[in-house]
Amino acid sequence: MNLIPIDDPQDPRVAAYLDIRERDLVGRQGRFVAEGKVVLDLLLSTGRFAAESALILENRLAGVQGTLRQAPPDFPVYVAAGEVMDRIAGFHMHRGILAIGIRGAPAPVEILVETLPRRALAVVLVGISNHDNMGAIFRNAAAFGADAVLLDRTCCDPLYRKAIRVSVGAALKVPFAFGDTAALTATLDRLGFSQFALSPSGTTDIRATQRSARLALYLGTEGEGLPQDLLARLRTVRIGMAEGFDSLNVAAASAIALHHFSDR
Amino acid sequence: MNLIPIDDPQDPRVAAYLDIRERDLVGRQGRFVAEGKVVLDLLLSTGRFAAESALILENRLAGVQGTLRQAPPDFPVYVAAGEVMDRIAGFHMHRGILAIGIRGAPAPVEILVETLPRRALAVVLVGISNHDNMGAIFRNAAAFGADAVLLDRTCCDPLYRKAIRVSVGAALKVPFAFGDTAALTATLDRLGFSQFALSPSGTTDIRATQRSARLALYLGTEGEGLPQDLLARLRTVRIGMAEGFDSLNVAAASAIALHHFSDR
Repeated sequence: MNLIPIDDPQDPRVAAYLDIRERDLVGRQGRFVAEGKVVLDLLLSTGRFAAESALILENRLAGVQGTLRQAPPDFPVYVAAGEVMDRIAGFHMHRGILAIGIRGAPAPVEILVETLPRRALAVVLVGISNHDNMGAIFRNAAAFGADAVLLDRTCCDPLYRKAIRVSVGAALKVPFAFGDTAALTATLDRLGFSQFALSPSGTTDIRATQRSARLALYLGTEGEGLPQDLLARLRTVRIGMAEGFDSLNVAAASAIALHHFSDR
Repeated sequence: MNLIPIDDPQDPRVAAYLDIRERDLVGRQGRFVAEGKVVLDLLLSTGRFAAESALILENRLAGVQGTLRQAPPDFPVYVAAGEVMDRIAGFHMHRGILAIGIRGAPAPVEILVETLPRRALAVVLVGISNHDNMGAIFRNAAAFGADAVLLDRTCCDPLYRKAIRVSVGAALKVPFAFGDTAALTATLDRLGFSQFALSPSGTTDIRATQRSARLALYLGTEGEGLPQDLLARLRTVRIGMAEGFDSLNVAAASAIALHHFSDR
């Protein structure tokens, strides 16, 4: 392993890790931050994204060596003491495991959809702007073997630091792409996908629906739900709830629907 | 309505609203904070907890009048301008709707269990220490008509401000009580409850389980799961997942299981 001790928080080799929270807001020019052992393991093992370097707290190194051996031998592993690490990150990093990934060119949504297997479960997200919900939906998508997450342009970034963390790395595993909803719906239709829109006012109870070989499941925001023009074009499905109760959280709804349609 | 203008952030009548975030940490001596219109509505409409007062941003008053009319005519509604409200709360309160509720004496868990209906769904939580998960589980419990949430002593407080907010008020609606797990399991058994423990290593797939008239569903923490001695005594149930995937978030698991066992 290419272990590189870091003593100076201003060392230019760890510049990508500086002031993590502030940098969340301004963006990282094609990079993202992976935190924690499970996420680092997915970053290195899935190979969907290139990893640029890791920054590990010195007393966490032993526990993460097996994970790091999945990287090429020259992969830079910066090692720092607690005080230096905290000064780099700008806050107390008690977990002490960080890595920088490279986004690469975004996959065109049409290519992703065209390459889905003959039996496929795709999640289509419209207007999911909360990183906790985004991360939780990816986690559920991975848990139930969804093949892709397709996002409209008003969704937030699945590679935002908090979204990756909440997804427990699933955002680095489940393929995703951004696109235009109208074009996407037409493409999915052409490729033989059944298209179900989850909505509290859906006409069919989800218990009465069956999985088709190719299925696209649309989820919208909690407040406004999916746009009316989309609901008019798709088969609408509801999750039965207690009377007088408002709505489920969209991540909870995704868990129920993905479990229902999953082959697992 | 008993509208009381507040101009001075130090006015003793709004002392319960001072420095909300700091007060979260030290406790509120038998009180809790309800935030937002939906939560205020549940606080006043369910009557499970007494409401002490409300503090409303002056330009939000019109939108919340119908909700406030559910309170007694002498219920104090403090009204403040934005700057005063922010200085009371200690941060920017953009939602502008707060209320103080009274916890009252905690319900003994045995009494709550004894008074459950003949057909009942109870959620038993062991070691749920994260307020987001606690709130999300209550929200799901309300959505699927669970009759009670029973908590072991290592669970966090469902009336913590963030837990109430994440529950969208369900923590003020679904009856709950704290107790000792071993005694609780014995009581539930005596009262004819089937007892299912949700665990990734459960012996029965949840799809193969059926709802009994009285059902208790046990959920544990994500990391450690339910204690082994408890798993040994209960029927264990798993949610099937994609191979190689670690685990579901406990709130997501609760959504799937409660939906499965719900009568709705």
